[in-house]
Amino acid sequence: MQNVDLKHAYRLLNHGPTVLVGSAHNGRSNVMAAAWAMPLDFDTPKIAVVIDKSTLTRELVDASGVLSLCVPCVAMKDLVMAAGGMSGKNHTDKLTRCHITTQPAPQTGVPLVEGSIAQMECRVLPATAHVAGPHDLILAEVIGAWADERVFSDGRWHFEDAPAELRSLHHVAGGHFYAIGEPVRALPVVNA
Amino acid sequence: MQNVDLKHAYRLLNHGPTVLVGSAHNGRSNVMAAAWAMPLDFDTPKIAVVIDKSTLTRELVDASGVLSLCVPCVAMKDLVMAAGGMSGKNHTDKLTRCHITTQPAPQTGVPLVEGSIAQMECRVLPATAHVAGPHDLILAEVIGAWADERVFSDGRWHFEDAPAELRSLHHVAGGHFYAIGEPVRALPVVNA
Repeated sequence: MQNVDLKHAYRLLNHGPTVLVGSAHNGRSNVMAAAWAMPLDFDTPKIAVVIDKSTLTRELVDASGVLSLCVPCVAMKDLVMAAGGMSGKNHTDKLTRCHITTQPAPQTGVPLVEGSIAQMECRVLPATAHVAGPHDLILAEVIGAWADERVFSDGRWHFEDAPAELRSLHHVAGGHFYAIGEPVRALPVVNA
Repeated sequence: MQNVDLKHAYRLLNHGPTVLVGSAHNGRSNVMAAAWAMPLDFDTPKIAVVIDKSTLTRELVDASGVLSLCVPCVAMKDLVMAAGGMSGKNHTDKLTRCHITTQPAPQTGVPLVEGSIAQMECRVLPATAHVAGPHDLILAEVIGAWADERVFSDGRWHFEDAPAELRSLHHVAGGHFYAIGEPVRALPVVNA
């Protein structure tokens, strides 16, 4: 994994991939899947992600004020499905059961999922309880970002140059995903 | 376009497509492109979208309390690029210049962009100024939803059964998009 310039971190989520949310507090940690995540700002980089209040992830994020977002790839499809369907509340060994291995993020210790094509370490924005409460919407600042240089370098995804199993996953419903597809180039805008 | 059950409306955005945001107030209307949009809730369906406060779209949305989200397809790539790069503040004839044709949504009159593969009519959630102000984050309820049955039916996308130019667009940066790709099926979760 290579460092991603924080000003380019939004690009890791800009094309709408399904993510894995990592959390840790007081010796407990968890990883869940989430399709509802997006960039919120460029610089300083911020993200928004919906995390249901019934989840262990939410408990840990609320208690610690930190989380990770990782972008999984096609090779990880069954892991993503398992991480989304199994609750860390019911299974203290969820990560083992889901074949998830993690490394602690350098600043916060929050788990980064191995095999992901991008990873972000994030700190929940203070005073955002007014959206977390009623809408389960977590707003956070990205404080570290990394990507697999086989698919992301010089601030840009280039899936077309890499094996198909490194493409990002985009969840539709019930275990049906699409992989990201082929590049499309639009005409530049004149007289903007 | 066919009606989409409101309980399935979240699926129109679940895979992370770039969207067109439609707005109208007092005889003025606009359409802009936005990559930062996602579902916020299932039922009642809600969405979150980032709309910069410097835009005409934001002015119209703030004044009217309504907006549309449309999902454009590959065939519309140059239109999307133009809608994202040209300001309605600088060009009162932006829609004509961008080759955008619209129809008014039935409940609110907000413009729905023709040629889109999905369309949603939305009402801004009351009392969400605390996120709109500092974060340009607009939260809204989906009150009507439609999709092109060639790519979405029975509550499910099926891009693989349709021409490639009907695939959704996923913006990376600077006019570089990816089309959504091939279906990926994950194993069901046992002992969730």
